[in-house]
Amino acid sequence: MDYRLYYSPGACSLAVHVVLEEIGAPYALEAVALARAENRQARYLAINPKGFVPALEIAGEPRVLTELPAILIYLARRHPQAGLLPETGTIDEARAFEWLAWLAGWVHGIGYAEIWRPERFSRADSTPHEALRANGRAIVEEAYAKIEDILGDGRTWAVASGYCVVDPFLLVLYRWGNRIGIPMRERYPAWTAHTERMLERAAVGRVLEQEGVLIEG
Amino acid sequence: MDYRLYYSPGACSLAVHVVLEEIGAPYALEAVALARAENRQARYLAINPKGFVPALEIAGEPRVLTELPAILIYLARRHPQAGLLPETGTIDEARAFEWLAWLAGWVHGIGYAEIWRPERFSRADSTPHEALRANGRAIVEEAYAKIEDILGDGRTWAVASGYCVVDPFLLVLYRWGNRIGIPMRERYPAWTAHTERMLERAAVGRVLEQEGVLIEG
Ligand SMILES: N[C@@H](CCC(=O)N[C@@H](CS)C(=O)NCC(=O)O)C(=O)O
Ligand SMILES: N[C@@H](CCC(=O)N[C@@H](CS)C(=O)NCC(=O)O)C(=O)O
Repeated sequence: MDYRLYYSPGACSLAVHVVLEEIGAPYALEAVALARAENRQARYLAINPKGFVPALEIAGEPRVLTELPAILIYLARRHPQAGLLPETGTIDEARAFEWLAWLAGWVHGIGYAEIWRPERFSRADSTPHEALRANGRAIVEEAYAKIEDILGDGRTWAVASGYCVVDPFLLVLYRWGNRIGIPMRERYPAWTAHTERMLERAAVGRVLEQEGVLIEG
Repeated sequence: MDYRLYYSPGACSLAVHVVLEEIGAPYALEAVALARAENRQARYLAINPKGFVPALEIAGEPRVLTELPAILIYLARRHPQAGLLPETGTIDEARAFEWLAWLAGWVHGIGYAEIWRPERFSRADSTPHEALRANGRAIVEEAYAKIEDILGDGRTWAVASGYCVVDPFLLVLYRWGNRIGIPMRERYPAWTAHTERMLERAAVGRVLEQEGVLIEG
Protein backbone atom coordinates (compact mmCIF):
# COMPACT_ATOMS: atom_id res chain seq x y z
CA MET A 1 0.00 0.00 0.00
CA ASP A 2 1.52 3.35 -1.03
CA TYR A 3 -1.00 5.55 0.79
CA ARG A 4 -3.67 5.53 3.46
CA LEU A 5 -6.29 8.27 3.34
CA TYR A 6 -8.08 9.35 6.51
CA TYR A 7 -11.42 10.67 5.28
CA SER A 8 -15.02 11.29 6.26
CA PRO A 9 -17.79 10.62 3.73
CA GLY A 10 -18.51 13.75 1.69
CA ALA A 11 -15.94 15.92 3.51
CA CYS A 12 -13.26 17.83 1.60
CA SER A 13 -11.20 14.61 1.78
CA LEU A 14 -13.41 13.46 -1.11
CA ALA A 15 -11.23 15.56 -3.45
CA VAL A 16 -8.15 13.57 -2.39
CA HIS A 17 -10.08 10.33 -2.79
CA VAL A 18 -10.88 11.27 -6.41
CA VAL A 19 -7.24 12.10 -7.08
CA LEU A 20 -6.12 8.73 -5.65
CA GLU A 21 -8.58 6.98 -7.97
CA GLU A 22 -7.40 9.03 -10.96
CA ILE A 23 -3.78 8.12 -10.24
CA GLY A 24 -4.40 4.43 -9.75
CA ALA A 25 -1.76 3.94 -7.04
CA PRO A 26 -2.59 1.35 -4.36
CA TYR A 27 -4.14 2.98 -1.30
CA ALA A 28 -6.21 2.13 1.77
CA LEU A 29 -9.13 4.13 3.11
CA GLU A 30 -9.71 4.80 6.77
CA ALA A 31 -12.98 6.41 7.84
CA VAL A 32 -12.91 9.06 10.58
CA ALA A 33 -16.58 9.93 10.92
CA LEU A 34 -16.99 13.64 11.59
CA ALA A 35 -20.67 12.99 12.34
CA ARG A 36 -19.52 10.97 15.36
CA ALA A 37 -16.70 13.43 16.19
CA GLU A 38 -14.14 10.66 15.70
CA ASN A 39 -11.71 13.35 14.54
CA ARG A 40 -11.65 14.72 18.11
CA GLN A 41 -10.85 11.37 19.73
CA ALA A 42 -7.41 10.63 21.13
CA ARG A 43 -6.86 7.84 18.62
CA TYR A 44 -7.11 10.18 15.65
CA LEU A 45 -5.40 13.13 17.37
CA ALA A 46 -2.35 10.90 17.80
CA ILE A 47 -2.27 10.55 14.01
CA ASN A 48 -3.23 14.14 13.11
CA PRO A 49 -3.05 16.54 16.06
CA LYS A 50 -4.93 19.15 14.01
CA GLY A 51 -8.03 16.95 14.25
CA PHE A 52 -9.05 17.49 10.63
CA VAL A 53 -9.50 15.29 7.62
CA PRO A 54 -7.96 14.74 5.12
CA ALA A 55 -4.66 13.32 6.34
CA LEU A 56 -2.50 11.19 4.08
CA GLU A 57 -0.20 8.46 5.32
CA ILE A 58 2.66 7.91 2.88
CA ALA A 59 4.65 4.67 2.84
CA GLY A 60 8.01 5.23 4.54
CA GLU A 61 7.05 8.63 5.99
CA PRO A 62 6.55 8.71 9.76
CA ARG A 63 4.17 11.69 9.93
CA VAL A 64 0.94 12.05 7.94
CA LEU A 65 0.69 14.88 5.43
CA THR A 66 -2.09 17.39 6.20
CA GLU A 67 -3.73 20.39 4.51
CA LEU A 68 -5.84 19.68 1.47
CA PRO A 69 -3.87 21.86 -1.00
CA ALA A 70 -0.57 20.26 0.05
CA ILE A 71 -1.95 16.73 -0.31
CA LEU A 72 -3.46 17.41 -3.73
CA ILE A 73 -0.28 18.99 -5.08
CA TYR A 74 1.91 16.26 -3.61
CA LEU A 75 -0.07 13.45 -5.25
CA ALA A 76 -0.18 15.25 -8.60
CA ARG A 77 3.57 15.92 -8.58
CA ARG A 78 4.45 12.45 -7.34
CA HIS A 79 2.48 10.86 -10.17
CA PRO A 80 3.13 13.13 -13.14
CA GLN A 81 1.87 10.56 -15.66
CA ALA A 82 -1.69 11.23 -14.40
CA GLY A 83 -1.41 14.83 -15.66
CA LEU A 84 -3.25 16.33 -12.71
CA LEU A 85 -1.45 19.68 -12.64
CA PRO A 86 -0.17 22.06 -15.34
CA GLU A 87 3.55 22.02 -16.00
CA THR A 88 5.85 23.23 -13.21
CA GLY A 89 6.77 26.91 -13.41
CA THR A 90 3.94 27.93 -15.74
CA ILE A 91 1.29 30.54 -15.11
CA ASP A 92 -1.37 27.83 -15.40
CA GLU A 93 0.25 26.01 -12.51
CA ALA A 94 0.14 29.25 -10.52
CA ARG A 95 -3.56 29.67 -11.34
CA ALA A 96 -4.21 26.16 -10.01
CA PHE A 97 -2.44 27.06 -6.74
CA GLU A 98 -4.36 30.36 -6.60
CA TRP A 99 -7.65 28.44 -6.88
CA LEU A 100 -6.57 25.98 -4.17
CA ALA A 101 -5.52 28.69 -1.73
CA TRP A 102 -8.74 30.64 -2.26
CA LEU A 103 -11.06 27.63 -2.11
CA ALA A 104 -9.32 26.17 0.95
CA GLY A 105 -8.55 29.37 2.84
CA TRP A 106 -11.58 31.49 2.04
CA VAL A 107 -14.56 29.53 0.68
CA HIS A 108 -14.04 26.45 2.83
CA GLY A 109 -11.84 27.75 5.66
CA ILE A 110 -13.98 30.80 6.41
CA GLY A 111 -17.30 30.49 4.51
CA TYR A 112 -18.23 26.89 5.30
CA ALA A 113 -16.34 26.81 8.56
CA GLU A 114 -18.44 29.73 9.85
CA ILE A 115 -21.61 27.87 8.87
CA TRP A 116 -20.69 24.42 10.17
CA ARG A 117 -18.02 25.12 12.79
CA PRO A 118 -18.74 28.58 14.25
CA GLU A 119 -16.97 27.44 17.43
CA ARG A 120 -13.65 27.63 15.56
CA PHE A 121 -14.09 31.41 15.47
CA SER A 122 -15.50 31.95 18.94
CA ARG A 123 -14.91 28.94 21.13
CA ALA A 124 -15.33 30.55 24.54
CA ASP A 125 -18.53 32.43 23.71
CA SER A 126 -21.32 30.92 21.65
CA THR A 127 -23.45 34.11 21.52
CA PRO A 128 -21.99 35.11 18.13
CA HIS A 129 -22.61 31.76 16.46
CA GLU A 130 -25.76 32.87 14.64
CA ALA A 131 -24.05 36.00 13.29
CA LEU A 132 -21.09 33.88 12.17
CA ARG A 133 -23.36 31.43 10.35
CA ALA A 134 -25.07 34.26 8.48
CA ASN A 135 -21.72 35.78 7.54
CA GLY A 136 -20.45 32.41 6.30
CA ARG A 137 -23.53 32.03 4.14
CA ALA A 138 -22.93 35.46 2.59
CA ILE A 139 -19.26 34.61 1.89
CA VAL A 140 -20.26 31.32 0.25
CA GLU A 141 -22.93 32.93 -1.94
CA GLU A 142 -20.60 35.69 -3.13
CA ALA A 143 -17.85 33.19 -3.85
CA TYR A 144 -20.26 30.93 -5.73
CA ALA A 145 -21.37 33.79 -7.99
CA LYS A 146 -17.70 34.37 -8.78
CA ILE A 147 -17.03 30.67 -9.46
CA GLU A 148 -20.02 30.58 -11.84
CA ASP A 149 -18.66 33.65 -13.65
CA ILE A 150 -15.25 32.08 -14.11
CA LEU A 151 -16.57 28.69 -15.25
CA GLY A 152 -18.99 30.50 -17.58
CA ASP A 153 -16.23 32.00 -19.75
CA GLY A 154 -16.15 28.98 -22.04
CA ARG A 155 -13.53 26.88 -20.28
CA THR A 156 -14.07 23.16 -19.69
CA TRP A 157 -12.17 22.85 -16.43
CA ALA A 158 -11.13 25.27 -13.66
CA VAL A 159 -7.75 25.95 -15.25
CA ALA A 160 -7.56 26.67 -18.98
CA SER A 161 -4.91 24.02 -19.68
CA GLY A 162 -7.15 21.11 -18.67
CA TYR A 163 -8.47 18.88 -15.90
CA CYS A 164 -6.44 19.21 -12.70
CA VAL A 165 -6.68 18.74 -8.90
CA VAL A 166 -8.80 21.89 -8.56
CA ASP A 167 -11.76 20.23 -10.31
CA PRO A 168 -12.47 17.56 -7.66
CA PHE A 169 -12.40 20.30 -5.02
CA LEU A 170 -15.04 22.22 -7.01
CA LEU A 171 -17.16 19.06 -7.07
CA VAL A 172 -17.06 18.90 -3.26
CA LEU A 173 -18.13 22.54 -3.03
CA TYR A 174 -20.97 22.01 -5.51
CA ARG A 175 -22.27 19.19 -3.34
CA TRP A 176 -21.98 21.31 -0.19
CA GLY A 177 -23.97 24.10 -1.87
CA ASN A 178 -26.86 21.68 -2.27
CA ARG A 179 -26.48 20.63 1.34
CA ILE A 180 -26.89 24.15 2.68
CA GLY A 181 -29.96 24.63 0.48
CA ILE A 182 -28.55 26.67 -2.41
CA PRO A 183 -30.45 25.69 -5.59
CA MET A 184 -27.21 24.84 -7.40
CA ARG A 185 -28.69 23.47 -10.62
CA GLU A 186 -31.01 26.44 -11.14
CA ARG A 187 -28.62 29.13 -10.13
CA TYR A 188 -25.30 27.98 -11.62
CA PRO A 189 -25.61 26.46 -15.11
CA ALA A 190 -21.90 26.62 -15.97
CA TRP A 191 -20.89 25.02 -12.68
CA THR A 192 -23.63 22.39 -13.15
CA ALA A 193 -22.18 21.52 -16.57
CA HIS A 194 -18.75 21.23 -14.91
CA THR A 195 -20.25 18.85 -12.33
CA GLU A 196 -21.80 16.76 -15.10
CA ARG A 197 -18.42 16.45 -16.76
CA MET A 198 -16.99 15.36 -13.41
CA LEU A 199 -19.70 12.71 -13.04
CA GLU A 200 -18.72 11.21 -16.41
CA ARG A 201 -15.30 10.35 -15.01
CA ALA A 202 -14.98 6.74 -13.88
CA ALA A 203 -12.82 7.76 -10.90
CA VAL A 204 -15.54 10.07 -9.62
CA GLY A 205 -18.24 7.42 -9.97
CA ARG A 206 -16.18 4.95 -7.96
CA VAL A 207 -15.51 7.45 -5.19
CA LEU A 208 -19.15 8.49 -4.76
CA GLU A 209 -20.09 4.85 -4.54
CA GLN A 210 -17.33 4.02 -2.05
CA GLU A 211 -18.21 6.98 0.19
CA GLY A 212 -21.95 6.38 -0.23
CA VAL A 213 -22.76 10.01 -1.04
CA LEU A 214 -24.74 11.77 -3.77
CA ILE A 215 -24.12 15.18 -5.31
CA GLU A 216 -27.76 16.19 -5.15
CA GLY A 217 -30.30 15.21 -2.56
CA MET B 1 10.39 44.91 -15.58
CA ASP B 2 9.38 41.27 -15.07
CA TYR B 3 7.14 41.83 -12.05
CA ARG B 4 5.24 44.49 -10.14
CA LEU B 5 4.43 43.78 -6.50
CA TYR B 6 1.44 45.46 -4.85
CA TYR B 7 2.35 45.56 -1.18
CA SER B 8 1.76 47.37 2.08
CA PRO B 9 4.68 47.95 4.46
CA GLY B 10 4.98 45.07 6.94
CA ALA B 11 1.96 43.15 5.55
CA CYS B 12 2.25 39.53 4.45
CA SER B 13 3.37 40.90 1.06
CA LEU B 14 6.76 41.34 2.78
CA ALA B 15 7.38 37.62 2.25
CA VAL B 16 6.98 38.04 -1.52
CA HIS B 17 9.23 41.10 -1.41
CA VAL B 18 11.98 39.03 0.22
CA VAL B 19 11.58 36.31 -2.41
CA LEU B 20 11.85 38.86 -5.24
CA GLU B 21 15.07 40.18 -3.69
CA GLU B 22 16.46 36.65 -3.29
CA ILE B 23 15.73 35.88 -6.92
CA GLY B 24 17.23 39.06 -8.31
CA ALA B 25 14.72 39.46 -11.16
CA PRO B 26 13.85 43.06 -12.10
CA TYR B 27 10.65 44.18 -10.36
CA ALA B 28 8.76 47.33 -9.42
CA LEU B 29 7.08 48.01 -6.09
CA GLU B 30 3.71 49.67 -5.77
CA ALA B 31 2.50 50.64 -2.31
CA VAL B 32 -1.17 50.09 -1.42
CA ALA B 33 -1.33 51.46 2.11
CA LEU B 34 -3.66 49.34 4.24
CA ALA B 35 -3.42 51.98 6.96
CA ARG B 36 -5.18 54.37 4.55
CA ALA B 37 -7.55 51.63 3.26
CA GLU B 38 -6.15 52.10 -0.25
CA ASN B 39 -6.85 48.39 -0.83
CA ARG B 40 -10.59 49.18 -0.66
CA GLN B 41 -10.46 51.98 -3.25
CA ALA B 42 -11.82 51.51 -6.76
CA ARG B 43 -8.40 52.00 -8.29
CA TYR B 44 -6.95 48.95 -6.51
CA LEU B 45 -10.12 46.85 -6.72
CA ALA B 46 -9.87 47.17 -10.52
CA ILE B 47 -6.46 45.49 -10.24
CA ASN B 48 -7.31 42.95 -7.52
CA PRO B 49 -11.06 42.61 -6.86
CA LYS B 50 -10.30 40.68 -3.67
CA GLY B 51 -8.95 43.89 -2.13
CA PHE B 52 -5.95 42.20 -0.52
CA VAL B 53 -2.21 42.48 -0.82
CA PRO B 54 -0.05 40.87 -2.10
CA ALA B 55 -0.89 40.88 -5.81
CA LEU B 56 1.77 40.19 -8.40
CA GLU B 57 1.69 41.63 -11.90
CA ILE B 58 3.61 39.39 -14.31
CA ALA B 59 4.93 40.71 -17.63
CA GLY B 60 2.67 39.50 -20.46
CA GLU B 61 -0.08 38.27 -18.13
CA PRO B 62 -3.29 40.36 -18.15
CA ARG B 63 -4.53 39.48 -14.63
CA VAL B 64 -2.51 39.80 -11.43
CA LEU B 65 -1.70 36.66 -9.48
CA THR B 66 -3.18 36.63 -5.95
CA GLU B 67 -2.96 34.45 -2.80
CA LEU B 68 0.32 34.46 -0.95
CA PRO B 69 1.06 30.71 -1.23
CA ALA B 70 0.43 30.76 -5.00
CA ILE B 71 2.70 33.77 -5.53
CA LEU B 72 5.53 32.34 -3.44
CA ILE B 73 5.41 28.97 -5.20
CA TYR B 74 5.16 30.57 -8.63
CA LEU B 75 8.25 32.72 -8.11
CA ALA B 76 10.26 29.84 -6.68
CA ARG B 77 9.34 27.51 -9.55
CA ARG B 78 9.84 30.17 -12.22
CA HIS B 79 13.36 30.87 -10.94
CA PRO B 80 14.70 27.45 -9.96
CA GLN B 81 18.30 28.64 -9.83
CA ALA B 82 17.44 30.55 -6.62
CA GLY B 83 16.69 27.21 -4.91
CA LEU B 84 13.72 28.51 -2.96
CA LEU B 85 11.73 25.27 -2.84
CA PRO B 86 12.67 21.61 -2.40
CA GLU B 87 12.69 19.48 -5.54
CA THR B 88 9.34 18.87 -7.27
CA GLY B 89 7.54 15.70 -6.17
CA THR B 90 9.48 15.20 -2.94
CA ILE B 91 8.07 14.94 0.55
CA ASP B 92 10.06 18.05 1.52
CA GLU B 93 8.23 20.00 -1.16
CA ALA B 94 4.95 18.73 0.28
CA ARG B 95 6.01 19.84 3.78
CA ALA B 96 6.71 23.33 2.40
CA PHE B 97 3.19 23.45 0.91
CA GLU B 98 1.73 22.11 4.16
CA TRP B 99 3.44 24.96 6.07
CA LEU B 100 2.17 27.54 3.56
CA ALA B 101 -1.43 26.30 3.69
CA TRP B 102 -1.44 26.24 7.47
CA LEU B 103 0.28 29.59 7.97
CA ALA B 104 -1.89 31.31 5.33
CA GLY B 105 -5.21 29.61 6.00
CA TRP B 106 -5.10 29.17 9.76
CA VAL B 107 -2.52 31.35 11.53
CA HIS B 108 -2.90 34.39 9.27
CA GLY B 109 -6.31 33.79 7.65
CA ILE B 110 -8.14 33.03 10.90
CA GLY B 111 -5.85 33.93 13.84
CA TYR B 112 -4.60 37.35 12.74
CA ALA B 113 -7.67 38.11 10.65
CA GLU B 114 -9.88 37.70 13.73
CA ILE B 115 -7.62 40.08 15.66
CA TRP B 116 -7.19 42.75 12.97
CA ARG B 117 -10.19 42.23 10.69
CA PRO B 118 -13.03 40.85 12.83
CA GLU B 119 -15.45 42.39 10.31
CA ARG B 120 -14.47 39.69 7.82
CA PHE B 121 -16.17 37.16 10.10
CA SER B 122 -19.19 39.21 11.12
CA ARG B 123 -19.66 42.13 8.80
CA ALA B 124 -23.32 42.91 9.50
CA ASP B 125 -23.06 42.75 13.27
CA SER B 126 -20.12 44.17 15.20
CA THR B 127 -21.26 42.88 18.61
CA PRO B 128 -19.06 39.75 18.34
CA HIS B 129 -15.89 41.62 17.42
CA GLU B 130 -14.39 41.46 20.90
CA ALA B 131 -15.06 37.72 21.19
CA LEU B 132 -13.50 37.20 17.76
CA ARG B 133 -10.38 39.17 18.73
CA ALA B 134 -9.93 37.05 21.85
CA ASN B 135 -10.37 33.84 19.87
CA GLY B 136 -7.85 35.00 17.25
CA ARG B 137 -5.36 35.72 19.99
CA ALA B 138 -5.79 32.19 21.40
CA ILE B 139 -5.33 30.66 17.93
CA VAL B 140 -2.15 32.66 17.37
CA GLU B 141 -0.67 31.74 20.75
CA GLU B 142 -1.38 28.03 20.29
CA ALA B 143 0.05 28.10 16.77
CA TYR B 144 3.14 29.96 17.97
CA ALA B 145 3.85 27.34 20.63
CA LYS B 146 3.68 24.73 17.88
CA ILE B 147 5.99 26.70 15.57
CA GLU B 148 8.52 27.05 18.40
CA ASP B 149 8.34 23.29 18.99
CA ILE B 150 8.99 22.50 15.35
CA LEU B 151 11.84 24.99 14.95
CA GLY B 152 13.30 23.75 18.23
CA ASP B 153 14.02 20.24 16.92
CA GLY B 154 17.45 21.22 15.64
CA ARG B 155 16.59 22.28 12.10
CA THR B 156 17.99 25.51 10.64
CA TRP B 157 15.05 26.41 8.41
CA ALA B 158 11.34 25.55 8.36
CA VAL B 159 11.85 22.61 6.02
CA ALA B 160 14.65 20.15 6.70
CA SER B 161 16.15 20.39 3.21
CA GLY B 162 17.06 24.06 3.54
CA TYR B 163 15.98 27.68 3.20
CA CYS B 164 12.76 28.06 1.20
CA VAL B 165 9.80 30.39 0.68
CA VAL B 166 8.26 29.36 4.02
CA ASP B 167 11.04 31.12 5.95
CA PRO B 168 10.20 34.70 4.88
CA PHE B 169 6.56 34.02 5.84
CA LEU B 170 7.74 32.97 9.33
CA LEU B 171 9.68 36.23 9.57
CA VAL B 172 6.48 38.21 8.90
CA LEU B 173 4.65 36.24 11.61
CA TYR B 174 7.48 36.79 14.09
CA ARG B 175 7.21 40.53 13.51
CA TRP B 176 3.43 40.43 13.91
CA GLY B 177 3.77 38.60 17.21
CA ASN B 178 5.76 41.53 18.54
CA ARG B 179 3.13 43.92 17.22
CA ILE B 180 0.32 42.25 19.15
CA GLY B 181 2.42 42.33 22.31
CA ILE B 182 3.68 38.75 22.51
CA PRO B 183 7.19 38.79 24.07
CA MET B 184 8.65 36.89 21.11
CA ARG B 185 12.31 37.00 22.11
CA GLU B 186 11.63 35.78 25.64
CA ARG B 187 9.09 33.17 24.78
CA TYR B 188 10.43 31.61 21.59
CA PRO B 189 14.21 31.10 21.56
CA ALA B 190 14.29 28.74 18.56
CA TRP B 191 12.12 31.02 16.47
CA THR B 192 14.24 34.00 17.57
CA ALA B 193 17.36 32.21 16.34
CA HIS B 194 15.56 31.56 13.05
CA THR B 195 14.75 35.28 12.80
CA GLU B 196 18.38 36.14 13.46
CA ARG B 197 19.44 33.88 10.62
CA MET B 198 16.91 35.62 8.41
CA LEU B 199 18.30 39.03 9.36
CA GLU B 200 21.76 37.94 8.23
CA ARG B 201 20.46 37.55 4.68
CA ALA B 202 21.24 40.54 2.46
CA ALA B 203 17.84 40.24 0.72
CA VAL B 204 16.03 40.57 4.04
CA GLY B 205 18.05 43.62 5.07
CA ARG B 206 17.23 45.38 1.80
CA VAL B 207 13.52 44.63 2.11
CA LEU B 208 13.21 45.90 5.69
CA GLU B 209 14.96 49.08 4.64
CA GLN B 210 12.80 49.54 1.54
CA GLU B 211 9.58 48.99 3.48
CA GLY B 212 10.79 51.04 6.43
CA VAL B 213 9.84 48.45 9.04
CA LEU B 214 11.60 46.82 11.98
CA ILE B 215 11.16 43.31 13.37
CA GLU B 216 11.08 44.46 16.97
CA GLY B 217 9.72 47.72 18.31
N1 LIG C 1 -6.95 23.34 6.74
C1 LIG C 1 -7.51 22.00 6.64
C2 LIG C 1 -8.99 22.06 6.93
C3 LIG C 1 -9.71 20.77 6.68
C4 LIG C 1 -11.10 20.74 7.28
O1 LIG C 1 -11.64 21.76 7.74
N2 LIG C 1 -11.72 19.56 7.22
C5 LIG C 1 -13.04 19.39 7.77
C6 LIG C 1 -13.84 18.45 6.90
S1 LIG C 1 -14.22 19.10 5.31
C7 LIG C 1 -12.92 18.80 9.14
O2 LIG C 1 -12.10 17.93 9.37
N3 LIG C 1 -13.76 19.24 10.08
C8 LIG C 1 -13.80 18.68 11.38
C9 LIG C 1 -13.94 19.69 12.47
O3 LIG C 1 -13.92 20.90 12.23
O4 LIG C 1 -14.07 19.23 13.64
C10 LIG C 1 -7.23 21.45 5.27
O5 LIG C 1 -7.16 22.22 4.30
O6 LIG C 1 -7.07 20.24 5.15
N1 LIG D 1 -5.87 35.08 1.09
C1 LIG D 1 -5.02 36.24 0.92
C2 LIG D 1 -5.09 37.08 2.17
C3 LIG D 1 -4.11 38.21 2.19
C4 LIG D 1 -4.39 39.22 3.28
O1 LIG D 1 -5.21 38.99 4.19
N2 LIG D 1 -3.68 40.34 3.24
C5 LIG D 1 -3.86 41.38 4.20
C6 LIG D 1 -2.53 42.04 4.54
S1 LIG D 1 -1.42 40.97 5.41
C7 LIG D 1 -4.76 42.44 3.63
O2 LIG D 1 -4.66 42.77 2.44
N3 LIG D 1 -5.66 43.00 4.44
C8 LIG D 1 -6.48 44.06 4.01
C9 LIG D 1 -7.89 43.97 4.51
O3 LIG D 1 -8.27 42.98 5.14
O4 LIG D 1 -8.64 44.95 4.24
C10 LIG D 1 -3.61 35.83 0.59
O5 LIG D 1 -3.19 34.76 1.05
O6 LIG D 1 -2.95 36.55 -0.15
